[in-house]
Amino acid sequence: MTTWQDLVADKKQRQLTAIPKEWIINTPPEDQLDVTDVPASCGLLTPFELEVTELDDVGVLLAKLASGEWSSVDVTRAYYKRAIIAQQVVNCLTEIFVERALQRAAECDEYLKKNGKPMGPLHGLPISIKDQFRMKGLETTIGFVQLIGKYSDEDAVLVTTLYEAGAVPFVRTNIPQTLMWTESYNNVFGRCVCPYNRALASGGSSGGEGALVGMKGSPIGVGTDIAGSIRVPAAFCGIYALRPSSHRFPYEGLEGPMQGQDAIPCVLGPMTRSLSGVKAFSKAVIDSKPWTKDPFMIRKDWDEDAYNLKEHGRGENLCFAIMWNNGCVLPHPPVRRALEETKAALQAKGIKVIDWPEFDYDALCTPLLESWAGGATIDFPKYVEKSGEPLLDTMAPEGKSVGFEWLKRPPCEPVSLYDSWQLMKKKNDLRNEHLSLWNSTASVTGTGRPVDAIVTPVAPYASVPHGRNIDVSYTVTWNALNCSTVIIPVSKVQPEIDVKQPREKFLNPRDEFIHNLYDPDQWRNAPVSLQLVAGPYEEEAVIHMAEIVDDAFKSSKSN
Amino acid sequence: MTTWQDLVADKKQRQLTAIPKEWIINTPPEDQLDVTDVPASCGLLTPFELEVTELDDVGVLLAKLASGEWSSVDVTRAYYKRAIIAQQVVNCLTEIFVERALQRAAECDEYLKKNGKPMGPLHGLPISIKDQFRMKGLETTIGFVQLIGKYSDEDAVLVTTLYEAGAVPFVRTNIPQTLMWTESYNNVFGRCVCPYNRALASGGSSGGEGALVGMKGSPIGVGTDIAGSIRVPAAFCGIYALRPSSHRFPYEGLEGPMQGQDAIPCVLGPMTRSLSGVKAFSKAVIDSKPWTKDPFMIRKDWDEDAYNLKEHGRGENLCFAIMWNNGCVLPHPPVRRALEETKAALQAKGIKVIDWPEFDYDALCTPLLESWAGGATIDFPKYVEKSGEPLLDTMAPEGKSVGFEWLKRPPCEPVSLYDSWQLMKKKNDLRNEHLSLWNSTASVTGTGRPVDAIVTPVAPYASVPHGRNIDVSYTVTWNALNCSTVIIPVSKVQPEIDVKQPREKFLNPRDEFIHNLYDPDQWRNAPVSLQLVAGPYEEEAVIHMAEIVDDAFKSSKSN
Repeated sequence: MTTWQDLVADKKQRQLTAIPKEWIINTPPEDQLDVTDVPASCGLLTPFELEVTELDDVGVLLAKLASGEWSSVDVTRAYYKRAIIAQQVVNCLTEIFVERALQRAAECDEYLKKNGKPMGPLHGLPISIKDQFRMKGLETTIGFVQLIGKYSDEDAVLVTTLYEAGAVPFVRTNIPQTLMWTESYNNVFGRCVCPYNRALASGGSSGGEGALVGMKGSPIGVGTDIAGSIRVPAAFCGIYALRPSSHRFPYEGLEGPMQGQDAIPCVLGPMTRSLSGVKAFSKAVIDSKPWTKDPFMIRKDWDEDAYNLKEHGRGENLCFAIMWNNGCVLPHPPVRRALEETKAALQAKGIKVIDWPEFDYDALCTPLLESWAGGATIDFPKYVEKSGEPLLDTMAPEGKSVGFEWLKRPPCEPVSLYDSWQLMKKKNDLRNEHLSLWNSTASVTGTGRPVDAIVTPVAPYASVPHGRNIDVSYTVTWNALNCSTVIIPVSKVQPEIDVKQPREKFLNPRDEFIHNLYDPDQWRNAPVSLQLVAGPYEEEAVIHMAEIVDDAFKSSKSN
Repeated sequence: MTTWQDLVADKKQRQLTAIPKEWIINTPPEDQLDVTDVPASCGLLTPFELEVTELDDVGVLLAKLASGEWSSVDVTRAYYKRAIIAQQVVNCLTEIFVERALQRAAECDEYLKKNGKPMGPLHGLPISIKDQFRMKGLETTIGFVQLIGKYSDEDAVLVTTLYEAGAVPFVRTNIPQTLMWTESYNNVFGRCVCPYNRALASGGSSGGEGALVGMKGSPIGVGTDIAGSIRVPAAFCGIYALRPSSHRFPYEGLEGPMQGQDAIPCVLGPMTRSLSGVKAFSKAVIDSKPWTKDPFMIRKDWDEDAYNLKEHGRGENLCFAIMWNNGCVLPHPPVRRALEETKAALQAKGIKVIDWPEFDYDALCTPLLESWAGGATIDFPKYVEKSGEPLLDTMAPEGKSVGFEWLKRPPCEPVSLYDSWQLMKKKNDLRNEHLSLWNSTASVTGTGRPVDAIVTPVAPYASVPHGRNIDVSYTVTWNALNCSTVIIPVSKVQPEIDVKQPREKFLNPRDEFIHNLYDPDQWRNAPVSLQLVAGPYEEEAVIHMAEIVDDAFKSSKSN
């Protein structure tokens, strides 16, 4: 009889076979925590391939591809090799299909040669995709054994959109079982880790994207986010990302549990090494008029006026607020330092910064988590009933809970539809209160407007040891409020300056647990990132404001 | 001990007392079915007040108000008197507050005099509002006894918006108990009937608005719609209306059951006697930037390009489809005739008309009805538990079911959240299929585009005898698909030509029940209306296309 372990062994063998033998490298020792230098040091990449993959600015890369200065085949091969290197050190990939991607890249090159113009706004660009977006002819297991061997006969709408925009979807990336964790471990593909410190989590659920893009193994990855699943791995792996408002990017055709859960829609968004990448992806997807392919989309064109901050004083007198903490969990010292440095950098640019007022964020977030758990407790088991693989109740390597869980998770009591309405009503009432709070800041900004955007932690920590990512309050808040949110990497943990501060009082047991978790040495080199939050449907504006924050930060560092 | 009947008696007495005594008319005999001539014949209105209230074109009315040619006080008084006349013959009102409205109108007049410009785009315009929108200082009972005496201390966002736009909210209108019926009867205010034929239903749940605006007792009314509640009463009462896509008009601050049911959002929209009224209301509300007040709104400006049919060939080669029936229930002869006349009118204008293809609309609609009922069965009883009034299980005057119910209604088994996800998933899959179907029409329109809009029945009948409105499949379809939808009145039932056609085969028992219901004489004079449907978030375009259909119809009649 075939066991689920047999199916996994076969799948992993097929994954390994998909890697060209000559791309197998000598991997560094397991106790080498920072593996970001492996692509440059392992010898697999040519100097040109290193140059291609080290170019962080996707805008510049797109220009080189569109002009033909660099061919898509060359760029795709460079990125594929680097992605395979990344796979061998952080385990970020699921589906690998080198020939198919190179063939697509060749089509792009031929198109450009024949027509003298690029195929579309993402011409020739390799793009990695979370293992959730169906692609014709490929499996989409989302890390569940029982989905092994189930090949898609259709592309997800976003995949079609990327093809039409001229892109080269070239690899799929690792996720956690059920997708409802902010780390990335499953029984099929195993654990994906942070490239800067392999003892720490890459985050999740788009953890494979985070780690791959963090390794510069892809110029742009596509993740999804219902509670932080784009933003947490982007932050833990030191890259930029956008969580757009709901129904702006086409989500149709994705595999995954909790289908039909429409009250809090999951969204997709780009994860990349430059804000030019965030903008190029967002504009290309919106310009494709996704509402003609996905009936759930909002018909809302890319708004260049909004990008030019028409509603934000044309960017001439911005006022940002800093959320030093959300009243639920105090951030670790490196995150606090990042906020302080951001404040200084913004002020140095003449941008006003105020403190974000208090709000009961736990009350806002818990209805979502309770509602999801109360449906998922029936839904999740259906994904393992045929294979017999165990449902995971922790992401910890120990295989057991780490002693504290804040997130309500299955198994639990199912929730009735009526009770879920009451949970959503609680959340909705708080959403109204939060808008009033935001509007009330108009009296202190000095601009006549409410604060233009809020700078917040992405999580109370800069990554965590495996299995310890128990808190998503800093991210799920903005899903509850449907805000447009960009992640900006700003620093790395430096144990020498990010020393542990003794505390005697705690907000709650979770705050204490998270405080106790921190050990500066263990966190060494972990990226530290920030979240910039604008209102709902302000994708264009938040991207531009992120550019302003990013520039301020870069100038402050170069001074 | 105070019984619920005592509370009702007191409430109705207060309602009566709110009517100036000199506005009480001699009402026509109960067996006079058409009461639309009562305002002109009862002698209460001055010739000027008749002129004011007979002016159907809201655009012209707004111009007269903005220029000061007509004062808001005069216009508001004229409409108030006519509304009170309407109340006495069709029972369309709930809250009556004459002095407050006239005072507001005086403020508008004063503003214009003082500033030399109107207060806003709806300057001085009296607007009636469904008894669901909270208004400071007024009760919002929504027809439930236990809400009698509960005064609001805040305005609904839409009410604030109307005040800011210069409007004069002047009266509130009748609804059905629970709001989840497409007729309007409740234990507090009783039954609202159709002005053109009082033996027939005014529709619901915005039935008070339908009847009031149909009586020309208000230039614009505001209704709400989750399954047809704007469109059904608009159609039954012979007026225009818009059901916008979700989250485009601000819904926050409304009373009503099923709060927190976010999967299929209820929407609000205008009900009025002219398309200029539909446009003026829609543009004013969107121009007010409702997303600054309601956190659920989509940030999407009024799009004049969309109104000018930029995405529809600039209106130069439109192609409409006609849905002759939805495969669930065949429409009665007058509705069929209206479709035929519309086709001829459009073709006479050189507009191409094709047949809309088949689709399984019952499969699309039933998941919504099952899900709502499965939550409402716990929710509805909470609205009567304190008062002891009975929950209605029929809208029929007989007080018992008419022998056939298609709509799944409480009391029923509660649905679990997980099962509701499965229902939404079914609906979502069909939504994708429906978009593919719509897109597939591009091969037969000859325009290169899919059909620009679909002309469909609003219901299988032009109104119904009380208690017989059992089918909402023609309207709830477009809630399921979130389409932008306008109602256009086109004709009246003429028993002499709309003769009953014998049928031997039926699509299902419901189709047979509805066929058997029809009696041309009983339906005499009932308005016959059509529904024009464009894609999601095409409010601007569907308004313009409705103007085109309306003009075609008017030219065909004048020929």
